[in-house]
Amino acid sequence: MNSSKIAIAIHGGAGTIPRGSLSPSQEKMYLEALRSALEAGYALLKSGASSLDAVCRSVMELENCPLFNSGRGSVFTHDGKIEMDASVMNGENLDAGAIAACTGIANPVLLARMVMEKTDHVLLVGEGANRFAEEMNIPKMPDDYFYTEFRWKQLESIRDSGKTMLDHQADKKFGTVGAVALDQQGHLAAATSTGGMTNKKYGRIGDSPIIGAGTYANDISCAVSCTGSGEYFMKCSAAFQVHAGMHFGGLSLEQSSSQLVHQELPKIGGDGGLIALDAHGNVCTPFNTEGMYRAYIDKNGKIEVLIYGIG
Amino acid sequence: MNSSKIAIAIHGGAGTIPRGSLSPSQEKMYLEALRSALEAGYALLKSGASSLDAVCRSVMELENCPLFNSGRGSVFTHDGKIEMDASVMNGENLDAGAIAACTGIANPVLLARMVMEKTDHVLLVGEGANRFAEEMNIPKMPDDYFYTEFRWKQLESIRDSGKTMLDHQADKKFGTVGAVALDQQGHLAAATSTGGMTNKKYGRIGDSPIIGAGTYANDISCAVSCTGSGEYFMKCSAAFQVHAGMHFGGLSLEQSSSQLVHQELPKIGGDGGLIALDAHGNVCTPFNTEGMYRAYIDKNGKIEVLIYGIG
Repeated sequence: MNSSKIAIAIHGGAGTIPRGSLSPSQEKMYLEALRSALEAGYALLKSGASSLDAVCRSVMELENCPLFNSGRGSVFTHDGKIEMDASVMNGENLDAGAIAACTGIANPVLLARMVMEKTDHVLLVGEGANRFAEEMNIPKMPDDYFYTEFRWKQLESIRDSGKTMLDHQADKKFGTVGAVALDQQGHLAAATSTGGMTNKKYGRIGDSPIIGAGTYANDISCAVSCTGSGEYFMKCSAAFQVHAGMHFGGLSLEQSSSQLVHQELPKIGGDGGLIALDAHGNVCTPFNTEGMYRAYIDKNGKIEVLIYGIG
Repeated sequence: MNSSKIAIAIHGGAGTIPRGSLSPSQEKMYLEALRSALEAGYALLKSGASSLDAVCRSVMELENCPLFNSGRGSVFTHDGKIEMDASVMNGENLDAGAIAACTGIANPVLLARMVMEKTDHVLLVGEGANRFAEEMNIPKMPDDYFYTEFRWKQLESIRDSGKTMLDHQADKKFGTVGAVALDQQGHLAAATSTGGMTNKKYGRIGDSPIIGAGTYANDISCAVSCTGSGEYFMKCSAAFQVHAGMHFGGLSLEQSSSQLVHQELPKIGGDGGLIALDAHGNVCTPFNTEGMYRAYIDKNGKIEVLIYGIG
């Protein structure tokens, strides 16, 4: 179908972000960064580019912004390293690519896309993913590219506690970024990228690089990118479950994504949220936490950039 | 519910296993190994043990058998190493654990279970998973424990070709093992374990350690373990999709698992099969390849041990 309707939604993580915990100038920085990432993807859609290009572009912008826990702003592992995960899926043909526990590259989402486009595989991890990046001639960034004093202090504050933090524990924010888009050809795509958990050990991987958990796209139903307590999203095959509720159960996008976020996830203790978009350009951004950094432009061109509110 | 009905199914991989390609004595070895692994799990179920114990026990038996591509019989990576993946899921509470690209341990399925029971995580990969195994005091096996001349020759035959093989290319067999079980308390569980692809590079991970792709269990519907071209199973969230067809679509176990294996997977080029069990003790073992090593004991106590036939 050539619907000519376009739409895009992005997120910069969900969690407890109490009103007043951000200064007005910090809040403004977040809102501006979201708007700018959103508009970069939307501009591509308007020019006729694919939804795949649009989601990668918006996620890249968020990866390049130190405010969000992905790419440049990634949190530190227990060993003081940066290990990043990302995934991307093309709703037109179910092609997908992902990388996990990858180090030193600026834009993990682009490496995930290369896994999709240049290999027969879906998921590459660790040293192997790094070697693949080298063979693709992706430049290795110096360590200080990723260094932010804020993130280092987060690690130091809990390093010896044995605890892990999903982004920052104090306000329990799940730092992950993601995008979903619908292009002029009616194709959907989704992408997700994260730095994971502060102080993570043992090569822990969450839902972000898992197709069907953190990311899913299928033209017959929807595109989804999740953020939250990744383990619970994995146990629920969260992103795919939104599709399944629509495809098998005949639910609307809103019903299916709400049911997952407000019923299925809480039942097993999962908190977080997601952004979802259907093939008609409807947008949903449900979350069961206090806030979620999010922004969208729907099929009618309506733009929203939000942190708080009811998800 | 306390159904007192018990059932178990296992697989040792699907693929093209042309009749006559196995000598009668080889065929006998495979059938005996399957029967023995099946009976070990079933004996636990009869004694009142949990389905979780039963699937782990059957998978352990298969991991210990050099005939199957998992544990002791794992294939070699491009670098001549053994990298193993495994996962386990408890249908009672959706608890799950998995490890990927782990080296040197005899029974990856037990390490996956420890991830589930001893950590807040679901998936640990690579060096991190190895460190976790050390901390759990799991003995490291010497390299020659895993060495089989047959597997080494498989690697040598394609090492410089740049190709990867899912188990052995000649007969295109997807070597993975798995088990699903229903215990006297009415709880379902599933487990899967694999050595992955011969000559694999770049830390490639398939569906076996991915909850929702290679493994899924939920008391309200079914337990599933998959084997096949893992990338396609990941794009389809295969194991979860069997659940979703039942839960959201009202399909029977047979309808849902057949639809996935005979319609959805072939649509995108995926071949392989799966074993599935519902909460009433019904067993399905669909596959779209020439054969699948499989065995089951259903709710009526009927035992089958099979390689060929219609899946």
